[in-house]
Amino acid sequence: NSYSIAVIPGDGIGPDVMDGALEVLAATEDIFSLSIKYHHYKAGAKHYLATGELWNHDLAQQLRTHDAVLFGAMGDPSVEPGILERGFILAMRQAFEQAVNLRPVKLYPGVATPIAGLTPERCDLVIVRENTEGAYVGQGSTIHANTPNTVAIQESVNTRQGIERVVEYSFKLAMNRRKKLTLCHKKNILIEAGKLWQDVVNSVATRYPEVNVDYVHVDAMCFHLPVAPEKFDVVVTDNLFGDIITDLGAVIQGGLGVAASGNLNLDGSAPSMFEAIHGSAPDIAGKGWANPVGAILSAAMMLAHLGEKAAAQAIEAAAVNVLKDLPALAGPGMGMSTTEIAAVVSSQIRTDF
Amino acid sequence: NSYSIAVIPGDGIGPDVMDGALEVLAATEDIFSLSIKYHHYKAGAKHYLATGELWNHDLAQQLRTHDAVLFGAMGDPSVEPGILERGFILAMRQAFEQAVNLRPVKLYPGVATPIAGLTPERCDLVIVRENTEGAYVGQGSTIHANTPNTVAIQESVNTRQGIERVVEYSFKLAMNRRKKLTLCHKKNILIEAGKLWQDVVNSVATRYPEVNVDYVHVDAMCFHLPVAPEKFDVVVTDNLFGDIITDLGAVIQGGLGVAASGNLNLDGSAPSMFEAIHGSAPDIAGKGWANPVGAILSAAMMLAHLGEKAAAQAIEAAAVNVLKDLPALAGPGMGMSTTEIAAVVSSQIRTDF
Ligand SMILES: CC(C)[C@H](C(=O)O)[C@@H](O)C(=O)O
Ligand SMILES: CC(C)[C@H](C(=O)O)[C@@H](O)C(=O)O
Repeated sequence: NSYSIAVIPGDGIGPDVMDGALEVLAATEDIFSLSIKYHHYKAGAKHYLATGELWNHDLAQQLRTHDAVLFGAMGDPSVEPGILERGFILAMRQAFEQAVNLRPVKLYPGVATPIAGLTPERCDLVIVRENTEGAYVGQGSTIHANTPNTVAIQESVNTRQGIERVVEYSFKLAMNRRKKLTLCHKKNILIEAGKLWQDVVNSVATRYPEVNVDYVHVDAMCFHLPVAPEKFDVVVTDNLFGDIITDLGAVIQGGLGVAASGNLNLDGSAPSMFEAIHGSAPDIAGKGWANPVGAILSAAMMLAHLGEKAAAQAIEAAAVNVLKDLPALAGPGMGMSTTEIAAVVSSQIRTDF
Repeated sequence: NSYSIAVIPGDGIGPDVMDGALEVLAATEDIFSLSIKYHHYKAGAKHYLATGELWNHDLAQQLRTHDAVLFGAMGDPSVEPGILERGFILAMRQAFEQAVNLRPVKLYPGVATPIAGLTPERCDLVIVRENTEGAYVGQGSTIHANTPNTVAIQESVNTRQGIERVVEYSFKLAMNRRKKLTLCHKKNILIEAGKLWQDVVNSVATRYPEVNVDYVHVDAMCFHLPVAPEKFDVVVTDNLFGDIITDLGAVIQGGLGVAASGNLNLDGSAPSMFEAIHGSAPDIAGKGWANPVGAILSAAMMLAHLGEKAAAQAIEAAAVNVLKDLPALAGPGMGMSTTEIAAVVSSQIRTDF
């Protein structure tokens, strides 16, 4: 129970929520006798503007020496959209073979969801998004550019092995949950990719006969997820569909403020990365209006991934508890500041465990 | 004001809701002195199982002789998913160059939306979905099939001309509405396709200086659309993203029962096609539990497209009015049967106009 963690606070509210997560981790260390060493790294919009540096070999080598990467948020209006996303986030996901993007969709008690009548008991699912291939490979070509006859082709590349590792992970996860797995795709239209996904699910399913398996088109998923989230337990899907339906999941659970995510390397070849799914929100940076719970829950997910289940559960319990008392999930009306929330969560861990 | 309409009732509840739409059209004919000739065509799951026929040259030739196609619903569990979708619906969209899939997202008074606190004034937008290209071209390839090394590539093909006609249409539509246009894409990741879409929007925008133009990523759209639909007026997007966000739109407006759509040919080279967006729901066919309002509003959209704006508005007003009195939008608790709803809408058109 000795860990070395790379910390990348990033831009905007990234450092604010990271401070909160680190304070909570410190409380957890004491109570659960963990020993965590942190090493801070600079990256993000500001760092890029100052140095021109994005993801690079040196940084990758340094990050590889740690057990996990804890990430704040990245982005600033002064950097063109796409630069940091592709130049850093996707680059890390691919270089570190972070095969799974894990996104729990859980409505916590006392959190206001925009879905009328939805209760926490009905909303507890996990979306497993393939995180390294599909449309995110960025392959394509444009011919006859700048003529009336331009054709732009964008490719989605899907490999059996890439899908298999994610599907295998999803079945294992389902076995530890309600034993239901839903493949989300658009196989009636994307016939090549859809067939491979369905084939892999069918073949892995034979090894998990207890898991109830079904299939839902991505358009139908948008129809069912908001009004009947109780239909889903583990949803496994491709990179692009996952990007889309996890944001829908975040709406349902009450917003980006509380949503956590893990970018999981499954074979131990490189560290996994954990981040709240909100953006860098530069307009409210430093104001105390950012909710650190997404970052705190991402830290909990990191501990669970490192095998520290009890510590992870303690953090989740304490963080969820504070949500009940917040009149709003972010902004000036949140009722507590970023640091106050982190302090309350930390002291609850110290007193309750 | 003399029209010839091809009618394809299709499967399941398709014939039920089509009967309703035709009754309402008959009332409208009398009041607005239109003369509409109908020609019924067989197509769909049952017809395919009986004859092996899908979309074909003969049918296309016959349908081309009409001013528009009115479509019920298609599909049955006994036909493998994908066969009718690709073999008929996509085939028609492509053969008839139905460039635009037009999907109003409008919350009507008295309709229960699952979004807490959403009011009709805040929810009135139109999604313009490109309907003939993108990922729907069905191009791709699979190599090393049935080996551990399978790779499935799926292509999205986007042409400047295909995008231009849809974007041009969207700007015109925005000029007749609140003069706001939002491009929805994922241009930070799908760089080839995204760049072409953004280029076309930028260049067409110069001819519509009054229109306020913005851009939202498809994942962010899923985040904003449910809670802040008032941010949007005309949303233009590609075929696949359109498929996804229009279903989300249908949730917000209270369900598939009331959602209408048009597959618009913009150059007069072939007929346009109008259909409710719900499926064939074979389990409730013939029971009187299907809501014909989606089909009725699709018929209104057809009349509007044919230039009969007053008649279209009369149908919409009468159909919307009946929605106020329905305790549920479909099923046994709808309060009125399919035929009763059609009768009420028809008689209201006869008395009010
Ligand atoms: C920042 C961006 C590259 C990213 C994505 O598209 O995957 C984000 O939307 C996410 O979901 O993590
Ligand atoms: C039936 C199917 C081919 C279709 C689509 O994917 O376009 C449907 O979902 C729609 O939105 O019209």
